[in-house]
Amino acid sequence: MNEQDETYLRMAIEASRAGMERGDGGPFGCVVVKDGKVVGTGNNRVTSTNDPTAHAEVVAIRDACKNLIDFQLTGCVLYTSCEPCPMCLGAIYWARPDRIVFAATRTDAAEVGFDDQLIYDELPLPISERRIPTQQALRNEGVDVFKAWAKLADKVRY
Amino acid sequence: MNEQDETYLRMAIEASRAGMERGDGGPFGCVVVKDGKVVGTGNNRVTSTNDPTAHAEVVAIRDACKNLIDFQLTGCVLYTSCEPCPMCLGAIYWARPDRIVFAATRTDAAEVGFDDQLIYDELPLPISERRIPTQQALRNEGVDVFKAWAKLADKVRY
Repeated sequence: MNEQDETYLRMAIEASRAGMERGDGGPFGCVVVKDGKVVGTGNNRVTSTNDPTAHAEVVAIRDACKNLIDFQLTGCVLYTSCEPCPMCLGAIYWARPDRIVFAATRTDAAEVGFDDQLIYDELPLPISERRIPTQQALRNEGVDVFKAWAKLADKVRY
Repeated sequence: MNEQDETYLRMAIEASRAGMERGDGGPFGCVVVKDGKVVGTGNNRVTSTNDPTAHAEVVAIRDACKNLIDFQLTGCVLYTSCEPCPMCLGAIYWARPDRIVFAATRTDAAEVGFDDQLIYDELPLPISERRIPTQQALRNEGVDVFKAWAKLADKVRY
């Protein structure tokens, strides 16, 4: 942690407050920084845009990738006002920034009604024990498409 | 599982193949169904749209929510050509459909180069043991915004 980290983390926290005050959604904000420059920002917009995936981190990652014209955040640091939920952490792993800095914890979030912990608890469970009933079928037909992918010559990996 | 389930799951698999053939991204497709009607569809578009969050399930959830003008998928079934990755499973938990049906498994996906398992393994780890270095700071400043949220009279919960 250095002074710059604090500056950008405060920007993320400010985005969380501003978004909440505008009525965009929950009190969460995020900024993505590369080479000392903000390349993406976001705040939660779930309820105002009818998009359950519009968490601050997802919005900021999408914004940064659009600006960088890349689907990877190599060389970037992601600053977020709260510890990422599993969806956002998954998004972060796919985007692959170098580092994450956050302020409030998942426990702090739970205390004001955002139960990320429930999802953290569900993900490692065997499918049969999860709250949302989940079934598998037609595996071979799904795998056939994977086999076609494996043979594809000009595919772009991610 | 019934005949309708197979029909919709085949539509998801077809979307996975069509998206791959168009060069949209990886070989993954998804449809969301409510009351016997397709309300949302999606296929992976990560590489063609420079959006690492544009997995089939996220795209289909966003599409369904836009069409239903709601940030929840109550009463819906989500059909996906492959077992959801942690990001998508998180998105599904936030969207709250009634049920999930999938075809190929995360192991099948890993065999053609999509390592969802790595992310499944990372999520339950303590922050200090994860591959992406993660630090916490300014917790009180983050929590201050949560306190303001807790006091907000007209907030929309999700």
